[in-house]
Amino acid sequence: MSGPEAADAGFEATAARVRASFARQAFMTALGARLERVAPGAVEVSVPFAAAHTQQNGFLHAGALAAIADSACGYSALTLAPPDHDVLAVEFKINLLRPATAPRFLACARVIRAGRTLTVAMAEVFGIADDDTRTPVATMLSTVIARRRAEIR
Amino acid sequence: MSGPEAADAGFEATAARVRASFARQAFMTALGARLERVAPGAVEVSVPFAAAHTQQNGFLHAGALAAIADSACGYSALTLAPPDHDVLAVEFKINLLRPATAPRFLACARVIRAGRTLTVAMAEVFGIADDDTRTPVATMLSTVIARRRAEIR
Amino acid sequence: MSGPEAADAGFEATAARVRASFARQAFMTALGARLERVAPGAVEVSVPFAAAHTQQNGFLHAGALAAIADSACGYSALTLAPPDHDVLAVEFKINLLRPATAPRFLACARVIRAGRTLTVAMAEVFGIADDDTRTPVATMLSTVIARRRAEIR
Amino acid sequence: MSGPEAADAGFEATAARVRASFARQAFMTALGARLERVAPGAVEVSVPFAAAHTQQNGFLHAGALAAIADSACGYSALTLAPPDHDVLAVEFKINLLRPATAPRFLACARVIRAGRTLTVAMAEVFGIADDDTRTPVATMLSTVIARRRAEIR
Repeated sequence: MSGPEAADAGFEATAARVRASFARQAFMTALGARLERVAPGAVEVSVPFAAAHTQQNGFLHAGALAAIADSACGYSALTLAPPDHDVLAVEFKINLLRPATAPRFLACARVIRAGRTLTVAMAEVFGIADDDTRTPVATMLSTVIARRRAEIR
Repeated sequence: MSGPEAADAGFEATAARVRASFARQAFMTALGARLERVAPGAVEVSVPFAAAHTQQNGFLHAGALAAIADSACGYSALTLAPPDHDVLAVEFKINLLRPATAPRFLACARVIRAGRTLTVAMAEVFGIADDDTRTPVATMLSTVIARRRAEIR
Repeated sequence: MSGPEAADAGFEATAARVRASFARQAFMTALGARLERVAPGAVEVSVPFAAAHTQQNGFLHAGALAAIADSACGYSALTLAPPDHDVLAVEFKINLLRPATAPRFLACARVIRAGRTLTVAMAEVFGIADDDTRTPVATMLSTVIARRRAEIR
Repeated sequence: MSGPEAADAGFEATAARVRASFARQAFMTALGARLERVAPGAVEVSVPFAAAHTQQNGFLHAGALAAIADSACGYSALTLAPPDHDVLAVEFKINLLRPATAPRFLACARVIRAGRTLTVAMAEVFGIADDDTRTPVATMLSTVIARRRAEIR
């Protein structure tokens, strides 16, 4: 087997690793976050608005937005990493563009530079209205390091 | 009354505003975070390690560290803002320095430049061991905007 | 007059302000930088490789890349600001994606969120080969403040 | 020989490598920058104000401030790297705190986390008045990667 099907088969194993790792992120479960899309170099994570996750004005807390954008960036890097590697965020920067008041949020991350050791990813976070219209609420630029799993801890 | 006592009296009202605002941040409650210190231009927020707030390797999720550092930076700015103002994070950048494995974490924020509209704050986040020794786990640099409360939405 | 022509006429005055301001940026002249494109919410600035602007390995210095990306971000914000306003960078973050070894570089900035006071812009910096192929060498995310010119200084 | 003197002797070789590398940074020469201090984990770089390096309001261009802060951060990392390694900036974020109008500027960088591969450094940039008083004008947080010199390019 060769060509796109082989590539798809290869990626299916990668996507399964991403899903399994995401499932181990207890914080994503605590936030009600879901892995919405896993593609080569691109991952999307959604989270519902929850009163329990707000800041003082009733907007979703920037930390909750940062959490899903960070996970989406990390996993977008993981889709391009060798099978025995795991990823850790080195750093990220996030700009909050508008108050986070939508019923749901979607962080769309994509790799903008994949290296052997370091990967740079960016994420746009949208507020998703009930009619599915999207409003940008945050943008993240992140550096991720890939390490052999055995080297983590 | 004048001098330090007047200043203290004035700051006590400010500190009370900070505490009341922090109490309205439902996400801090959800994380188990506590406001540990409120001083002019400096705020500290702690959070316990919780298995429910981890990433895939069992470290505290970067989003949880970012959340307490962001709140600490924002409230350090609020200590220097006029009484009728509230603060919102414009953006922040966080470097993750070590795996977040301690039983407790403390974000220590201080204002490095207070302006009329924008304030720049920085936070160091430490892992706190059971014997109270501190290990740096993250550093944040953040820009905060102060607005009259009536202008927030 | 109304419609696109009016819009174009209106933007021509804005573009002229951008060009005049860029011409006053002595540092751009010192770097040999040129304003390549001015459109609503989007500005491009190029700079030639110069041995005099390198770091220790002979790559263009990150500070030179940051300089053109910063100017491009600032002017992309200026294209959307009121006529009597000027812009200043509040902060920027830049990821260096590859060694900067091309004969020429192009910073392509666009506004991703225009506000009354603060504008967020992002810039991609490409190395431009002699055959005009583009290779990404850096990405910037920047916050810009607009102020009435009289309030600057 | 052992103890502090051995350490000093060892560091002198490191400091000489830093000075030699800085001397190869043509851009520092072009800016008139000088290496003012080299200590373990700490490096200072100064630059004079120059009309040729200004932005549209006559302040030193943010790119020039970023350039000296970036070099200072990179060299603070190099002071702690193995002898056969060189350093490259992965990314940096800079907050501009005040208009850069002083006759001279000093970037004071120090390592806040030294790792095998990645080092995190921070720099404060001060405007230096004629009477030597210092005013903070910028703060940088930077990630630096160390590589064996043979692996660069």
